Amino acid sequence: MELVVGIDIGGTKTKIGLVDAQGNSDFNTFFRTKEYPDFQNYLAQIVASIDELIAQLTTPYHMVGVGIGAPNASSKRGTIEHAANLPWKGSVPLVDELKKHIDLPIKLMNDASAAALGEMLFGNAKGMNDFIVITLGTGLGSGIVANGQLIEGFDGFAGELGHFDLTFGDGRLTGLGVDGGLEAYVSATGLKRTIMYMLSKHMDKSRFRAIAYNDLHGEDITKAAEEGDAIAIKAFEYTSKILGHALANFVTFTQPEAIFLLGGLTSSGKWIFDTTKQYMEKHLLKVYQGKVKLLSSGMHGKNAAILGAASLIWNEQ
Amino acid sequence: MELVVGIDIGGTKTKIGLVDAQGNSDFNTFFRTKEYPDFQNYLAQIVASIDELIAQLTTPYHMVGVGIGAPNASSKRGTIEHAANLPWKGSVPLVDELKKHIDLPIKLMNDASAAALGEMLFGNAKGMNDFIVITLGTGLGSGIVANGQLIEGFDGFAGELGHFDLTFGDGRLTGLGVDGGLEAYVSATGLKRTIMYMLSKHMDKSRFRAIAYNDLHGEDITKAAEEGDAIAIKAFEYTSKILGHALANFVTFTQPEAIFLLGGLTSSGKWIFDTTKQYMEKHLLKVYQGKVKLLSSGMHGKNAAILGAASLIWNEQ
Repeated sequence: MELVVGIDIGGTKTKIGLVDAQGNSDFNTFFRTKEYPDFQNYLAQIVASIDELIAQLTTPYHMVGVGIGAPNASSKRGTIEHAANLPWKGSVPLVDELKKHIDLPIKLMNDASAAALGEMLFGNAKGMNDFIVITLGTGLGSGIVANGQLIEGFDGFAGELGHFDLTFGDGRLTGLGVDGGLEAYVSATGLKRTIMYMLSKHMDKSRFRAIAYNDLHGEDITKAAEEGDAIAIKAFEYTSKILGHALANFVTFTQPEAIFLLGGLTSSGKWIFDTTKQYMEKHLLKVYQGKVKLLSSGMHGKNAAILGAASLIWNEQ
Repeated sequence: MELVVGIDIGGTKTKIGLVDAQGNSDFNTFFRTKEYPDFQNYLAQIVASIDELIAQLTTPYHMVGVGIGAPNASSKRGTIEHAANLPWKGSVPLVDELKKHIDLPIKLMNDASAAALGEMLFGNAKGMNDFIVITLGTGLGSGIVANGQLIEGFDGFAGELGHFDLTFGDGRLTGLGVDGGLEAYVSATGLKRTIMYMLSKHMDKSRFRAIAYNDLHGEDITKAAEEGDAIAIKAFEYTSKILGHALANFVTFTQPEAIFLLGGLTSSGKWIFDTTKQYMEKHLLKVYQGKVKLLSSGMHGKNAAILGAASLIWNEQ
């Protein structure tokens, strides 16, 4: 059996799994990223985790390579650069360092771009040549496929649509200081900020008048909307309106066949999907209208991050 | 000698030339598009023009194919669809119709996308895999190359950045009714509109207080700026600021190595280039800063439109 090691490096967890060519990942594990502030110790823990997974295999196997998804990753240099949520500062030469321990092809990419490849190999984008994946988590990530290929950019930093500036001045600041960046509006954090904004703008009664920003969670906002909380409903409407308008803009770039939404926020189906679709369609150029599908990711419920990372290698087989 | 027919279909002129593999185009001609409102007559005039050019050849030749650049062209369907400035209405099956008269490979593409291929084969983008060409004429066109390939989009309408909405409401309307579309600000027409805006906003003395909108021309605005006209200078500053900011945004998409500016407006070097560069750099994400070149097209002074069209065929040889 041929297997690929998929590694997803996140601010909280580092997830590792063995993935076969059909996207099955029966053996996987994780450890807490922040417990390894020393980068060499972190590498040793990755290697130990892989060995531990391999030890569980009971059938003969051939290891094809290692695919890694991470924030702020340069696919072309194999580095992670200035990642705000990871413990190692500056530019970290992850691929070169890992190669000292592992004698296999290793490929690193932006986690959202890895998710796009995962969608193409194992999700709902099978057979599509032109699509965009938007991941909505704490922030907003994106992976862009055109002509059947992932767009990597000049040195591997393409697809940073969370930092696309919507406002041209006087907007919300993102964590990177971008004024009006999309993820300051459309993400779990963005939704919380919008609840604050709606509490400032409107006088409707709302359960959120009794809850502090730090105690707000995305699921509670969805639940409140379901139960008719006017502030929650207005917050979703506002978020979807902005996302729909932004997506219509993105279509002028690569004219995708479909845009996939992935992540916790998008599981609140009707509160994001339907309105976003409506606003996207409204703002599309006539020549694009009725042609762009807004779809749910096929990776919900699967080990999306590990499969995306592994698809960096499987995509080249 | 191997030759390609390059055809550029514009609202005013249809330009036709024979182009060799090095981008030389010694034989070319044009006729007025609007004189052929009947599409079959138009096709006949194209065929007659090609025959006329071929008759001038004195050496043996082999004709490789026909490349066509046009507004509102779908590369994948071979159609021109709802082009506002062309005489034929609806969807025109240009490639299929022309194939009835010409037994050669025929390829049609958006004119700005053809310009991008031209830049790659015969201009300043030789050897680059990731770049964007922005054409500034009456409107704003764009062609995007990533991973060494032109991005065509799901049905061939990618790269309509002139209709990228900058304002998210209450902006200038483009000819297609897009509220806040880039070309309503950045194009020859956009610059004229900005002169009107500056006349409304400021009380500076200006020669433009004596000139009607219809009598305004881009060259006059450049000349006025050179001579210190405060309204003209403010108009260029405003245009460059918007273009620079928009380009910084576009970088988050495909992270190009370079962005090329092509067209009449960009020949006014210091009034557009320097300020645009400065504002682009200011708005770039840190990870992109200092990495994106803003360059002048290498096609100025050449027969850019015909060479771009011909490169659709040469690119595939």
